[in-house]
Amino acid sequence: MKNIINKDETFKLPRLYINKPLTNKGVIELESSQVHYLHNVLRKKDDDYIRLFNGKDGEWLGSITFLSKKSATVKLEQQLLEQPQNTRRVHLIFTPIKKNRMDWLIEKAVELGATDFHPIVTQNTENRKIKEERLKSQIFEAAEQCERLEIPTLHELNKIDHTLDKWDENTPILSCIERFDAQDIKDAAQKNLNGDIAVLIGPEGGFTSKEKGNIGKKTTAVSLGDTILRCETAVAKALILINA
Amino acid sequence: MKNIINKDETFKLPRLYINKPLTNKGVIELESSQVHYLHNVLRKKDDDYIRLFNGKDGEWLGSITFLSKKSATVKLEQQLLEQPQNTRRVHLIFTPIKKNRMDWLIEKAVELGATDFHPIVTQNTENRKIKEERLKSQIFEAAEQCERLEIPTLHELNKIDHTLDKWDENTPILSCIERFDAQDIKDAAQKNLNGDIAVLIGPEGGFTSKEKGNIGKKTTAVSLGDTILRCETAVAKALILINA
Repeated sequence: MKNIINKDETFKLPRLYINKPLTNKGVIELESSQVHYLHNVLRKKDDDYIRLFNGKDGEWLGSITFLSKKSATVKLEQQLLEQPQNTRRVHLIFTPIKKNRMDWLIEKAVELGATDFHPIVTQNTENRKIKEERLKSQIFEAAEQCERLEIPTLHELNKIDHTLDKWDENTPILSCIERFDAQDIKDAAQKNLNGDIAVLIGPEGGFTSKEKGNIGKKTTAVSLGDTILRCETAVAKALILINA
Repeated sequence: MKNIINKDETFKLPRLYINKPLTNKGVIELESSQVHYLHNVLRKKDDDYIRLFNGKDGEWLGSITFLSKKSATVKLEQQLLEQPQNTRRVHLIFTPIKKNRMDWLIEKAVELGATDFHPIVTQNTENRKIKEERLKSQIFEAAEQCERLEIPTLHELNKIDHTLDKWDENTPILSCIERFDAQDIKDAAQKNLNGDIAVLIGPEGGFTSKEKGNIGKKTTAVSLGDTILRCETAVAKALILINA
């Protein structure tokens, strides 16, 4: 006997990313970490509903047809949301920061619509390495949690000059530079409301003069306001304001 | 011999809140937790500079005249920033959430300009208690970290209806209600750019119909956009957008 589902309440259902095609009436076998999550953490049962997305085929309602400690199958009942078409790319160019704040930076950037993460190393970068696998899994988890249908891309860590020098000129970069008399980020974003866009957030120690030279040539300097913001807050504010 | 200070670099100096009057050439004795912080954590020495603020007299540059394990005195050298006059009050009405996310909510709300915290209990509130002392010290620390000159006020935890019923009608409340066809928060905030303002962020489980009735009567419903945001992200977004 299927549990009854109220259509307005589907947003409360667990939402899992699965790297498989999603089509009508298909049956999907879940991955072991997802089996664990549904079985042991959420204590789901046969006939319970979940949601699935794969970054390509929109969001689907599925009902659990079999769930044990070790495996789970889900029958796709119907598409809840179509995959959005032609969404703009929102690139985030950022420097790695300390673990907790980095976790938060990633989570919020996904939640607030970043589609591409470009970690960069600058002279004053606190952490000069990233744990790529850890970051990728955080990106996946954040995309599962919030209602996004795409999985943001994590690009390779590079020196700032390398990233700027090989940048596609069709995507403008707004550089958020502290204590710099620049135009408001909203005004700069207004000029490019629908096209691809990038924001560059500097390290907490600021950029060196040499770095600023290259940034001045390749980007548009913008202001996030008068207050000094932590790096991860600046990321959130920039992402919110380019869509405001 | 005093260390030389570059005026453009004062923003890098440690910044401490002290509950004492700050006046020209005054000498201030620091509190023991601050002594510990300067001595053991930052390893400061005599003649090093720090900044002090008290929420009333602006921000002051001080030089350490004596620092030991147990006590420290600071001579006030000059006022760096005047106390801002007549800033608007920005009230945040919110429901307690889980520890880590609550920590972050408080830190970001202080950083983004909330002046008054009003914790409320609703039917679907996850945590029905707050640790008042812990929250207060987080508010202090966040205000020290970011460049704010006021210390936000933590109000008592109350039931939502109680908070709404005794609310001062001169301060409009913008209620951020998920999946609700409401005006954009920016447009609502535009009508009240300089006056006191409040934002109400609901619990992740949403409000009950009874609660929504009272909210409908006492507040203006606004939208934070189409995406589902975690509670603490909604707080950050609302605070950023009412000033955007």
